[in-house]
Amino acid sequence: MTQKWLHLPASLPLAGDGHLQAVIQEADTGTVLMLVELDREALERLAATGRLHYYDPKKRKVVAKGEASGHFQEVLEIRLSCRGNQLLIRVRPAGGACELGYQSCFFRKLGPDGWEIADPKVFDPAEVYPEIAFSH
Amino acid sequence: MTQKWLHLPASLPLAGDGHLQAVIQEADTGTVLMLVELDREALERLAATGRLHYYDPKKRKVVAKGEASGHFQEVLEIRLSCRGNQLLIRVRPAGGACELGYQSCFFRKLGPDGWEIADPKVFDPAEVYPEIAFSH
Repeated sequence: MTQKWLHLPASLPLAGDGHLQAVIQEADTGTVLMLVELDREALERLAATGRLHYYDPKKRKVVAKGEASGHFQEVLEIRLSCRGNQLLIRVRPAGGACELGYQSCFFRKLGPDGWEIADPKVFDPAEVYPEIAFSH
Repeated sequence: MTQKWLHLPASLPLAGDGHLQAVIQEADTGTVLMLVELDREALERLAATGRLHYYDPKKRKVVAKGEASGHFQEVLEIRLSCRGNQLLIRVRPAGGACELGYQSCFFRKLGPDGWEIADPKVFDPAEVYPEIAFSH
């Protein structure tokens, strides 16, 4: 698995401290899970492990997706935008992507009365992230 | 159709000159077509027309997707990320989204020898965008 993405960091025209936007999509279902930023460290750690890593703006550092929840995401396919500055990463997730308990971070849709929850919860955040106080 | 998204601009906590990242997905197939930025003007024009509008960084202004190609995108569903700062917009496209002739801007994938074209062309850019000189 790790061999597969060995050349990823060198294949991207990324400036030293540059960030790339990446759409994360569940390969099996087509569900868009997250929209995150990757920097060089995230690309290198993805290439080394075969698992999604990204820059977490709240923590101000690169994290492995799933390092707190166990919901890792195995990277199956990496696509590049026409302008060469965005990625589409197709993954096999080990569990829900959203730390609020949903499969996708895009679990709300706009209805006649505003934003409404459109998806079922797939896990209990209080069990999976016991260190986070949820006020939602 | 226009009534459907009437409250969109007011439903988003967008600062005066703020931009939102938006993943554009083909509703029928799940294909991720583009990743674009919307500002208040783009949201207002989307709400008024039911068609995708976005801020074009090359042209430095808001454009209607398809205004040059005729490949408009009818907006079927709008989703919001958990942090409230990103959109997933599910559309019915009237033609390929990528001005290089592909259905999706993410038409290249990383293979053993680097980036390779993974999708078929769905239109001829020279016919659809005669005003653009393509060097690709």
